[in-house]
Amino acid sequence: MYSIFETKIIVRPDDIDMNNHVHYSRYLDYILMARYDQMKKDYKVAMEEFVDRGFSWVASEVNIQYKRPIFLADGTISVRTQLEEFNGARVMINFWIVKGENEKIAAQGQVNYTMITVKNGKPTRVPDDIVEQYQI
Amino acid sequence: MYSIFETKIIVRPDDIDMNNHVHYSRYLDYILMARYDQMKKDYKVAMEEFVDRGFSWVASEVNIQYKRPIFLADGTISVRTQLEEFNGARVMINFWIVKGENEKIAAQGQVNYTMITVKNGKPTRVPDDIVEQYQI
Amino acid sequence: MYSIFETKIIVRPDDIDMNNHVHYSRYLDYILMARYDQMKKDYKVAMEEFVDRGFSWVASEVNIQYKRPIFLADGTISVRTQLEEFNGARVMINFWIVKGENEKIAAQGQVNYTMITVKNGKPTRVPDDIVEQYQI
Amino acid sequence: MYSIFETKIIVRPDDIDMNNHVHYSRYLDYILMARYDQMKKDYKVAMEEFVDRGFSWVASEVNIQYKRPIFLADGTISVRTQLEEFNGARVMINFWIVKGENEKIAAQGQVNYTMITVKNGKPTRVPDDIVEQYQI
Repeated sequence: MYSIFETKIIVRPDDIDMNNHVHYSRYLDYILMARYDQMKKDYKVAMEEFVDRGFSWVASEVNIQYKRPIFLADGTISVRTQLEEFNGARVMINFWIVKGENEKIAAQGQVNYTMITVKNGKPTRVPDDIVEQYQI
Repeated sequence: MYSIFETKIIVRPDDIDMNNHVHYSRYLDYILMARYDQMKKDYKVAMEEFVDRGFSWVASEVNIQYKRPIFLADGTISVRTQLEEFNGARVMINFWIVKGENEKIAAQGQVNYTMITVKNGKPTRVPDDIVEQYQI
Repeated sequence: MYSIFETKIIVRPDDIDMNNHVHYSRYLDYILMARYDQMKKDYKVAMEEFVDRGFSWVASEVNIQYKRPIFLADGTISVRTQLEEFNGARVMINFWIVKGENEKIAAQGQVNYTMITVKNGKPTRVPDDIVEQYQI
Repeated sequence: MYSIFETKIIVRPDDIDMNNHVHYSRYLDYILMARYDQMKKDYKVAMEEFVDRGFSWVASEVNIQYKRPIFLADGTISVRTQLEEFNGARVMINFWIVKGENEKIAAQGQVNYTMITVKNGKPTRVPDDIVEQYQI
């Protein structure tokens, strides 16, 4: 069982759609932002390092359950993510988006990211030194 | 087995992210656009009619597999959706996003939408006359 | 001369476009976010109060000069805005988006917002009590 | 006086904000899309050609007046643009966004784009052969 890390995100007016809550696709943007933040802050291998080594990450699967709407008035929400497992070029991440004093779950699910070599766009096995640094 | 309907969508420059392909959250925007289009064009019950009757739809779950990147140069893509089943306030939709002459699959998956009563935000059983009109 | 207020905004990965910097339309989203924040934090008349009184604000003109790109690596930027003048239903706002330790200007310009009555969408003279509260 | 070219754009549900009309920053996305489309369709020098020659375009100034809201129900809108003048590395473009049978103006204004050399990000005088091809 790996650690759960957290990123605070402030809801922006442009995230709100005609239903007066955060648009359903923006949840994926919140998750991506949390991963970038936590790669740097918690795992100590920032996205820039991957890019410097010729790698990048693309999403290969998302599974998200929307539990409660997020309103502009919610102000700041928390996105928590956790490494579930590495599998070759893939990493599976669990996530929870929570809001309010009672930290009610607004959404939860899993994202699969695939590491690619930028030059050819091909999936590439995540190097051992990175796998090690992420297993915290 | 219900019909599969199709909507053509033109990729916009603002859909492209730093990886030079369509940003992963924009796929959900394409699916939403296809549903709106097909509700009107194919099922003949446009979103406006739901709103007039005091209803709206919110996404309650999305499951999406990304198979191939979509580039700006792909120009026009097709989003196909199909009713899988109605279940009380919920409707499950299968979708496929295809591109190019060979109609290769860029992404596929399922979305669950829940019909709500706008006034109280509560899930509401889809009325029989609508269920009927959608079962084509 | 009215006060200049400031809002810190964290750049999100989804703000970045194919040129690897913040997409030019997202600057308008940053400005809007800053205004919402400052209406509440500095002017003490939050957007919700306008809505409660049956009013809303829409942009009627934007003039923006882009001076320097904003990168994801810039992390947090500052959006400063200042009331220039009230004119009936309109308010003119000066803004500056600055970044980095040296607070270099990434963009600057003016936005004109028009207050409308939500019910009919018509421009409506800003009430005196609000004008007064904003003249700080 | 140069030619005015036109691009049809279909409003997407994700373009709509909490005010139930197209979000004010999305107008800039519509303009960008129109320019990309017209560079290829009308001027016969597609963005890809600029990139192939090591160039790119960035916005250096936008001046936009919002005249009428655009609703999802408006369906398809038209974005018309016209070259105003070339000036070294800069090109000034006039634009009009029109909607409906009566082609009422939803927004109008000007955008200044600056051509840059991708490698160093520096403004670069637009080559004569391109200037010529755009003066139609």
